[in-house]
Amino acid sequence: IAWKGSPQFTQGGKAFKVKGRIQADAGFVSVPGGLDDRGLGFSSEMRRLRLGGEGSLARNLSYKLEFELSDNAVDLVDTFITYRNGPWQVQIGNQNAFWSLDELTGDTSGSVMERAAFTDAFNFERRLGLGMQYGKGPWIAQLGVFTDDPSSLANSSDGVNGGDENNSYSVDGRLVFAPRLGEIQLHLAGSAHWRRLGRLAEASTRYRQRPYAHGTNTRLIGTPAMNVEDETMYGAEMAAISGRWWGAAEYYHLAADRVGLPTVGFQGAYGEVGYFLTEGDSRGYKGGIFTTNAPAHPLDKDGPGSIQVALRYDWLDLNDRDIRGGTQNGYIAALVWSPIQYLRFNVNYALMRYNGAAALPSGERSYDANVVGTRFELDF
Amino acid sequence: IAWKGSPQFTQGGKAFKVKGRIQADAGFVSVPGGLDDRGLGFSSEMRRLRLGGEGSLARNLSYKLEFELSDNAVDLVDTFITYRNGPWQVQIGNQNAFWSLDELTGDTSGSVMERAAFTDAFNFERRLGLGMQYGKGPWIAQLGVFTDDPSSLANSSDGVNGGDENNSYSVDGRLVFAPRLGEIQLHLAGSAHWRRLGRLAEASTRYRQRPYAHGTNTRLIGTPAMNVEDETMYGAEMAAISGRWWGAAEYYHLAADRVGLPTVGFQGAYGEVGYFLTEGDSRGYKGGIFTTNAPAHPLDKDGPGSIQVALRYDWLDLNDRDIRGGTQNGYIAALVWSPIQYLRFNVNYALMRYNGAAALPSGERSYDANVVGTRFELDF
Amino acid sequence: IAWKGSPQFTQGGKAFKVKGRIQADAGFVSVPGGLDDRGLGFSSEMRRLRLGGEGSLARNLSYKLEFELSDNAVDLVDTFITYRNGPWQVQIGNQNAFWSLDELTGDTSGSVMERAAFTDAFNFERRLGLGMQYGKGPWIAQLGVFTDDPSSLANSSDGVNGGDENNSYSVDGRLVFAPRLGEIQLHLAGSAHWRRLGRLAEASTRYRQRPYAHGTNTRLIGTPAMNVEDETMYGAEMAAISGRWWGAAEYYHLAADRVGLPTVGFQGAYGEVGYFLTEGDSRGYKGGIFTTNAPAHPLDKDGPGSIQVALRYDWLDLNDRDIRGGTQNGYIAALVWSPIQYLRFNVNYALMRYNGAAALPSGERSYDANVVGTRFELDF
Repeated sequence: IAWKGSPQFTQGGKAFKVKGRIQADAGFVSVPGGLDDRGLGFSSEMRRLRLGGEGSLARNLSYKLEFELSDNAVDLVDTFITYRNGPWQVQIGNQNAFWSLDELTGDTSGSVMERAAFTDAFNFERRLGLGMQYGKGPWIAQLGVFTDDPSSLANSSDGVNGGDENNSYSVDGRLVFAPRLGEIQLHLAGSAHWRRLGRLAEASTRYRQRPYAHGTNTRLIGTPAMNVEDETMYGAEMAAISGRWWGAAEYYHLAADRVGLPTVGFQGAYGEVGYFLTEGDSRGYKGGIFTTNAPAHPLDKDGPGSIQVALRYDWLDLNDRDIRGGTQNGYIAALVWSPIQYLRFNVNYALMRYNGAAALPSGERSYDANVVGTRFELDF
Repeated sequence: IAWKGSPQFTQGGKAFKVKGRIQADAGFVSVPGGLDDRGLGFSSEMRRLRLGGEGSLARNLSYKLEFELSDNAVDLVDTFITYRNGPWQVQIGNQNAFWSLDELTGDTSGSVMERAAFTDAFNFERRLGLGMQYGKGPWIAQLGVFTDDPSSLANSSDGVNGGDENNSYSVDGRLVFAPRLGEIQLHLAGSAHWRRLGRLAEASTRYRQRPYAHGTNTRLIGTPAMNVEDETMYGAEMAAISGRWWGAAEYYHLAADRVGLPTVGFQGAYGEVGYFLTEGDSRGYKGGIFTTNAPAHPLDKDGPGSIQVALRYDWLDLNDRDIRGGTQNGYIAALVWSPIQYLRFNVNYALMRYNGAAALPSGERSYDANVVGTRFELDF
Repeated sequence: IAWKGSPQFTQGGKAFKVKGRIQADAGFVSVPGGLDDRGLGFSSEMRRLRLGGEGSLARNLSYKLEFELSDNAVDLVDTFITYRNGPWQVQIGNQNAFWSLDELTGDTSGSVMERAAFTDAFNFERRLGLGMQYGKGPWIAQLGVFTDDPSSLANSSDGVNGGDENNSYSVDGRLVFAPRLGEIQLHLAGSAHWRRLGRLAEASTRYRQRPYAHGTNTRLIGTPAMNVEDETMYGAEMAAISGRWWGAAEYYHLAADRVGLPTVGFQGAYGEVGYFLTEGDSRGYKGGIFTTNAPAHPLDKDGPGSIQVALRYDWLDLNDRDIRGGTQNGYIAALVWSPIQYLRFNVNYALMRYNGAAALPSGERSYDANVVGTRFELDF
């Protein structure tokens, strides 16, 4: 019996552990002068609530099943079976489609409260499918085919949103090169994604983003609804960890093929640098993503826990050709205190600078929003 | 490994336990003569279904996460993290806002199947917030700030019911004095609550109550929809346990400040006396609320289990000024058989006497309803 | 600590185990020539997702609580408490109402991916109620009273679908004779069901069925909506297991008493024969239903796992008197590979022959559909 927030039972190659997660947020988004939107200002919410289990049926055969209660609906998060054989891994079920480093890194392992603006704007999500992985030395190659997220597939309505009429699919790949150079863990990666929306081309597709905080449903920038038949995405990733320091940067480009209209391209990127104020602490890294290390001096051993600070610049550009979705430049400062493993407190400040955003009464489309976010999160 | 319905694993200061609850009801509400309401009569339902976990990350840091399936939706019940240090306790998350003794006592520890009429009528519920507690000797002082329940906060609709437009908050406090006088456990307490509804003042607020049984959705008494901007509540609590006997009584007053109209006040109260027919059994008490003791002679050790009977008078008055919500006087007799710890069977009878209730075809607003309720409940 | 996909903890007569299930499907239903239905063709979905627990409070007192996420809603599956005393068993809660062998056999113990057409068409489901069972030697007698499924009972709408207006109930019985004749396990059974729909007689009742695959919401055959006040059903069951071979056959008849119209009768049946390609494997049988045996030579012990093949003929007739719901003759071939206990892969092919089905543009109502289904399923 090991202990990872909750007990992990093992017997031969078999294993089992109950999993859960609580994230509670309170935050504030300043209302840009004169904008009449009551969805801004103060908000609080349970950000993510998860319950599930993970285990192994045999030494090379593991599973995960996790429900999430968020936005008053129960959805599926990681829910799959994994088969490992030497350098090969095959995973069937609901899983991330080899997106960007920021999306793949767990939400309780992040450096800032909300992921890069392009990850939501480009609709990254878990999808039902088959993913394969080959890992050798510093290399990891990932390739998969996916349909759609389980809640879309289970939608029982008739028409374009009906789950049984959904015949979208995608092919997604990612290549990671992560050498260890002395004390430095390096991460270089690229990913490519192609999706045929099929029947969904008759539904409307939007690319848009909240002003950093999830507590508001307001989107100050976003494209109009479009009929998209294909999406092609490319991403480039770069990161490094050296002792208490780390840095990360990514760039993503999405090309949306519209039905009967020219293709439009949108893009986003972020760059981040971070540092642990507490000695002996550092960000973890494993399997091509950031992970969380236990605090070197946790509170229950009379230490301060771990304290990390990060600065991030986050950019999103939803303008191309006839589409004027607007642009967003975010400047984010983040503090994370983890008094003990599996428990973290976040305080974030973000200055969001908009161009071509939702118009103020004056007609002005370029303005700033100030965002303060706080979160406690617990994993077991 | 201890056993509390399901195994509780401990390792140093760490602990974990899966939690669940099943409550199934069948009951009958007699239709007052001539009232054409098909929601009365016989009903059966799964009253509460819960699944979750609780544990500790360290000796003074514990958590709880519990989902409830009821009324065909999944909601959150107790879901928080608790930090204890000497006499101090801080709790963040979804929790009860220091309501009345009857509301705070667990639903599988109650003496009757449904709580006092005022607890539903005044909309007691768990809310997202921060609660603090200080306990010393017979004293417990509790104080907290809360926003709203997680499902309201997560409502994604626009307008007054939108979760991101919800800026309500409350300050709630409770003071308990619970001395032990020889064989007698005494409980004296008072609580005070102030809530600013903010944006919700534009939504409609109603105070109403079912005819005791939860299986029906009919409310025979209730106020019309009102625009309330502030709520102020006071409650007084009194209880005593002496061997196989116990008694409890509470009074609650709610003042609702209406937008542009005079404040109205509503009130409720109950008094109860109970007795265990089985030797060696008694009601439990801990931390300012009733708890459940294991039967002294359980069925699996050839005993009868524990059998308790209780009589309760329950009063609710929703009349004030221009508001004629009606009044309800309930006379409740309850039998609870617990053959073994964590399993209980309830049989309740209630005579509900109404004044100013929903009108019969004859125009009569004063009449009686007879209610029979049965429940089995299991906790693990 | 035993291990059944996940650890089962025991302490004296007490026991506990977390339970979960993942079933993911991908399939294809050929569109009958010219039929304009986009719900056919390819589909993928998470078929069943379950999370819960089961255990014992004492040696003769056990419980089960299981939530299911399917079709984007959380429902209750097996959720009850069971008391055993010698040959007697009493079960209260949400449970199967002693339906047919095919329905009662667990969905990860079946020989084909979807159950016999009549089980869905006649609306078999779990219901809240009280079931009793007496078992002695080769005999099992089962009898119960049930109301409705918990989600119908909890429906908070007013009107015919309102849970509190639902006063339907049924009496259901089943008698099993299952002697062991040398190497042969025989199963002979009959069941009878009577249901009074009460208030639901004013709602509409339909009997219909998908073209084998669950991924589509299209029903090619089905009755129109009817006002049914009583349902009477009879079923006959027959099965045998002999080493690697097994066979099963059932017949079910439903008589629906319509309000103010003559009673109509519908019927279905299936016959199946199956064989394990792998030595030492056989279908399990216990308590009047098929169960799953662990593979004799599992993959983690360098074996092939178990491989079973089955052929099934499945018939459904929804024609009687003025009702022309159509008929369906299904010819199903199934392959199940279980590399290791609690994990199975299914591949099914079905030829569905229709008469009196949804009309093609040509007006033709007799045609074929070809169905291919694949599933992986994992239990813990």
